[in-house]
Amino acid sequence: MISVKEAKKIILNSTQNFGVEEIPFIKSVGRILKEDILADRDFPPFNRVSMDGIAIDFTSFKNGQRSFKIEGIQPAGSEQISLNNPENCIEVMTGAVLPNNTNSVIRYEDITIKNGVATINIDEIKDAQNIHSKGKDGKFGDLLIKQNTKISASEIGVLATVGKSFVKVAKQPKVMIVSTGDELVGVDEIPLEHQIRRSNVFTLVSLLERLHIPSETAHITDDKPILKQKIERYLQEYDVLLFSGAVSKGKFDFLPEVFNELGVEKLFHKIAQRPGKPFWFGSTASLSISEQDVYQNEKGNSKKNTIVFGFPGNPISTFVNCLAYFYPWYYKSVGVEVEEETAILSEDFVFKPSLTYFLQVKLSYKFGHLVATPITGNGSGDLASLVNADAFIQLPNDKNEFKSGEVFPIIRYR
Amino acid sequence: MISVKEAKKIILNSTQNFGVEEIPFIKSVGRILKEDILADRDFPPFNRVSMDGIAIDFTSFKNGQRSFKIEGIQPAGSEQISLNNPENCIEVMTGAVLPNNTNSVIRYEDITIKNGVATINIDEIKDAQNIHSKGKDGKFGDLLIKQNTKISASEIGVLATVGKSFVKVAKQPKVMIVSTGDELVGVDEIPLEHQIRRSNVFTLVSLLERLHIPSETAHITDDKPILKQKIERYLQEYDVLLFSGAVSKGKFDFLPEVFNELGVEKLFHKIAQRPGKPFWFGSTASLSISEQDVYQNEKGNSKKNTIVFGFPGNPISTFVNCLAYFYPWYYKSVGVEVEEETAILSEDFVFKPSLTYFLQVKLSYKFGHLVATPITGNGSGDLASLVNADAFIQLPNDKNEFKSGEVFPIIRYR
Repeated sequence: MISVKEAKKIILNSTQNFGVEEIPFIKSVGRILKEDILADRDFPPFNRVSMDGIAIDFTSFKNGQRSFKIEGIQPAGSEQISLNNPENCIEVMTGAVLPNNTNSVIRYEDITIKNGVATINIDEIKDAQNIHSKGKDGKFGDLLIKQNTKISASEIGVLATVGKSFVKVAKQPKVMIVSTGDELVGVDEIPLEHQIRRSNVFTLVSLLERLHIPSETAHITDDKPILKQKIERYLQEYDVLLFSGAVSKGKFDFLPEVFNELGVEKLFHKIAQRPGKPFWFGSTASLSISEQDVYQNEKGNSKKNTIVFGFPGNPISTFVNCLAYFYPWYYKSVGVEVEEETAILSEDFVFKPSLTYFLQVKLSYKFGHLVATPITGNGSGDLASLVNADAFIQLPNDKNEFKSGEVFPIIRYR
Repeated sequence: MISVKEAKKIILNSTQNFGVEEIPFIKSVGRILKEDILADRDFPPFNRVSMDGIAIDFTSFKNGQRSFKIEGIQPAGSEQISLNNPENCIEVMTGAVLPNNTNSVIRYEDITIKNGVATINIDEIKDAQNIHSKGKDGKFGDLLIKQNTKISASEIGVLATVGKSFVKVAKQPKVMIVSTGDELVGVDEIPLEHQIRRSNVFTLVSLLERLHIPSETAHITDDKPILKQKIERYLQEYDVLLFSGAVSKGKFDFLPEVFNELGVEKLFHKIAQRPGKPFWFGSTASLSISEQDVYQNEKGNSKKNTIVFGFPGNPISTFVNCLAYFYPWYYKSVGVEVEEETAILSEDFVFKPSLTYFLQVKLSYKFGHLVATPITGNGSGDLASLVNADAFIQLPNDKNEFKSGEVFPIIRYR
């Protein structure tokens, strides 16, 4: 049994590069950018009018002139025109190019227009006012979005602006999620008294969807030869296998043996934590090069091995382990750094065993503080208690008493 | 010009019910649940073994017996068997039904098995230990998930468990997003010097995708008759229209007139805020009943009117107004309460105008505190600055100096 810290270290040493693909920018939200986005021109690309009104030659105003004959109009989207007479003005619209020979914009709010003449009603105006000057936000070639950024709505506007209709992003791993356990029936079946419905695979599908990773699912009966045959195929076809169940000490917990027989190297089995202790983690990295080559060809990409996450079958165990281990593994694999979030415990809590405890908490915001209130469930089988919480707070194994006001890392799931 | 508070009040008084639809549960993440989810049986549905090991009659242990002949095995997913001789035991697996005539489970870790006899190696065991008793997490009929919950991965497991293969969720509004502005060209076009690429509609599409709202987009040239003709049709076909641009004082800012001529009632125009001041908001609710009926039939649903959000064309104005006004409008429409988040300003900040200021900030977590560091952009046209921040902090209009350590509401966008 290893510590949470050691487990995380081993997992972060098993990350993989799944390569890069180019996708339409509008589909890229949530994906990880794999190129630097540079300004394709200055921003703004021209001296841009930033208020509706008139553009003048500031010198005329400085010389005391207040009334300006309207010589023309410069709408947004039109080619730049010129002010011919410095004692006249041009009506200008937000987003338009500033007309040639003008250098200050006065808003409609501050002028009166009568008989084609605009009169300025304020005493003070500044040179270059209401002009968003060429290149002020960025110069041609400036770095606008760094590689490895997780794309959000705010990046979408920049990608559109610089004309990146297709964008390079990290390719997602090919994932198979497998449930085991002969007590499981389908969601639309009526379980017999000793049966329950499958649920963990769907939870895992949803947790991966949060990362924009598509996945497939399968259920395998607790029969060793069948497990072995199917998993052998999955190891060839997928980058990552996620299992739920069959990794503990039960007579039908065949997975560790099957993995071993198929050449998946065990990197650890069991972490000193609750819930989720019997987690099995391994990789096919130690298979001989020729075996890897076979896999490589059949997968049709450059992946060198398959990573196996064998989560325990209890619903909360699977849930917390996916968040605490698969998520960081994925983020490091695609090159994203994630800041650790912390919260303040709202009440005293006691946990005696010498295990790291992932305690379910409800989060609330109080005066800029993130407060975590424990939600007491009935152990790792109590799926319904997840609904009442928003996060897990990670209580370290080196003490038993956790006081109200103390700060610990959290893993948020909504 | 009205205050942010008044604007929000008007918008929240214009919410709508878009009805309910039934969708596959696995597609329901991010949607708003529109039925209470009840336990279809007790949870667990039987006295469930929670550790791999042996099940015994506790009385025998209490009477001093330590070695138990293994009489049978109870795997998960099998019908309940019975212990025939109270001095024997049954091997049991996690997830199995507790065998009849047994009432305590001892883990494999605490026993030795030899020649078909299990010997207990510990001195203390408890009655009913390692049993997750029937109904402990919930009773048949218990409320597991409340109506109006935003469905996340944690709800998916519960939906699967109770057999909700289809689930009732709030129907999404039918949304059209329209850009205007003759300076705009397509993302895959090369703009002329006085042109820029369309970006706001794509940003809005992405911001709505975060709410799992699909949308359509269109671009209309700055030509009043064309605008009027197209918008008339959109008013008939959509529940919500989002515009970007053409709501300010420019000569080609035709939208307010067009809305007026089409019978869209202006509920406000301009909010005392920066950025995003010229925001126009209205609704067709005041159209006569017969006109509404026409719309109702053509939309083919029970919507009574169309809501029009006319956002200003500057990128940050559109962005912040969508988050500050469309989001709360949507959440209230579908019945979700959202907790206000707050953060602590990390440095002094001065803003003189008597306007509510939505300041871009970078968030960080320090000892359970959420800290907001101002990101200085170059005004509402500076799209690139959105990339460097994660949120807006809302600074009230009744003061000019904001001190490091003060707490204000934030709107997070990643």
